[in-house]
Amino acid sequence: MRVIQAIAEMQRQSDEWRRRGLRVVLVPTMGYLHEGHLSLMRLGRRAGDRLVASIFVNPAQFAPGEDYEKYPRDPERDLRLCEETGVDAAFLPSAEEMYPPGYQTYVDVSEVSRPLCGASRPVFFRGVATVVCKLFHMVKPHAAVFGEKDYQQLLTVRRMVRDLDMDVEVLGHPLVREEDGLAMSSRNVYLSAERRAKALRLSQALDRAEALVKGGERGAGAVLEEVARVLGPDDEMRVDYAEIRDTENLETVHRLEGPVLLALAAFVGDVRLIDNRVLTPSPSPA
Amino acid sequence: MRVIQAIAEMQRQSDEWRRRGLRVVLVPTMGYLHEGHLSLMRLGRRAGDRLVASIFVNPAQFAPGEDYEKYPRDPERDLRLCEETGVDAAFLPSAEEMYPPGYQTYVDVSEVSRPLCGASRPVFFRGVATVVCKLFHMVKPHAAVFGEKDYQQLLTVRRMVRDLDMDVEVLGHPLVREEDGLAMSSRNVYLSAERRAKALRLSQALDRAEALVKGGERGAGAVLEEVARVLGPDDEMRVDYAEIRDTENLETVHRLEGPVLLALAAFVGDVRLIDNRVLTPSPSPA
Repeated sequence: MRVIQAIAEMQRQSDEWRRRGLRVVLVPTMGYLHEGHLSLMRLGRRAGDRLVASIFVNPAQFAPGEDYEKYPRDPERDLRLCEETGVDAAFLPSAEEMYPPGYQTYVDVSEVSRPLCGASRPVFFRGVATVVCKLFHMVKPHAAVFGEKDYQQLLTVRRMVRDLDMDVEVLGHPLVREEDGLAMSSRNVYLSAERRAKALRLSQALDRAEALVKGGERGAGAVLEEVARVLGPDDEMRVDYAEIRDTENLETVHRLEGPVLLALAAFVGDVRLIDNRVLTPSPSPA
Repeated sequence: MRVIQAIAEMQRQSDEWRRRGLRVVLVPTMGYLHEGHLSLMRLGRRAGDRLVASIFVNPAQFAPGEDYEKYPRDPERDLRLCEETGVDAAFLPSAEEMYPPGYQTYVDVSEVSRPLCGASRPVFFRGVATVVCKLFHMVKPHAAVFGEKDYQQLLTVRRMVRDLDMDVEVLGHPLVREEDGLAMSSRNVYLSAERRAKALRLSQALDRAEALVKGGERGAGAVLEEVARVLGPDDEMRVDYAEIRDTENLETVHRLEGPVLLALAAFVGDVRLIDNRVLTPSPSPA
């Protein structure tokens, strides 16, 4: 496995692969890899001939006061996991080369990035779209893999790629959970055992909502009431949002007439966690 | 010469050239070609193995009330001129494919795009940066040629390319003038003979400023006073801006201690014209 830090070196490596007709796949990550990331890499491995994993904690997607400085990092372990998972090149650009003095260009996906996490974190998706655009220019992939855990991010990237005519296939990978149901996240390491138990309410709320909808419920309000009941009031858990939205344009949905997105975000202590599920109503009796 | 309209077809053509190791050069234009464009194409011809000229009047860089609808167009003549100038592929995407329903992604170069034309035309450079970013993804050029007539546009594109790590060499071409000194522009066709004579004051003002600076003047204020005198008050000519700025970051310059940009914009009747010159003070006596 090659370890590449310089942007120009990454571009030359990808040019060389492309000239040989090899299909290049990118899995962008912020490191501190867990089984969710490794699943994306295994999908990426199958989707092409050369697999690049980027590891970059992107300052542009953190607002002042968010956890950029203390976001967990362990590059040595990450590199070992990349190698074990069949990565051909691990790409670790420096923040100094990514955002040099005078940096001033941003990519804004102006509609799907506004609600949900975009409402809570106003610079987040501008930072995500910008860094993914940059990474695509550095790695020049034929395809890139993103997790459905970050559903709104996946939609934002898909929209950017389509709107800016980037010749990159965007592949989504289903959300990966711990055995107890908690959605995998690098931020889970912040959780004490007690808080982790509370964090489980997120996936439990999704399960309850899914059961309700399978049972015939079509009203978004009724589903969200049940979600609120499961999440419950708690001194150590503050719900950021719990919403039912269109799966493509993220517009608010009042009545379930096809698949919809149930998206949750909550602070457990000071750790912000997200989770989501696409709910598909069972066909109405004729 | 190939004439390509579909975006995917342009991408496949460029992929094929690139796999053969050919260097692809793009000259982006809004059509209604004049000698200025043809000079860019001749430079592009020398700078690579395959030359693409795009012809697209970009709605995203016109504000409501500007001249998008009546911007001059003559695709048949443009194609003939492209062919005569050695273009390998003329690329004429449709506005419908460039900006389909649901389009929502924009590239913002947030500092060099703000003063001068950016102050007069608030959406202009966002539209320019976005369409150039899109064209680069469609044509996948190794290099692209832009005229120094649109000096701020050239700086904006250079900054975008550097910030977004686009692997494209940006080549500038000196401003091309008519025999009487008027900077070449597709909009010159709008000018009556009488107004054209008034429009000449722009290049005359640049000449006078250059003579002053060559004569030892170092004060930006004094140079701009002389520029204002040459441009003069006139019922049919309204100066939009006349400014002396840093050649790289476009910050205002008060005293000339190295090369500076003198940038002019004026409405002659309802036609907006721009012109500029880099003024280099002669070395001070020791």
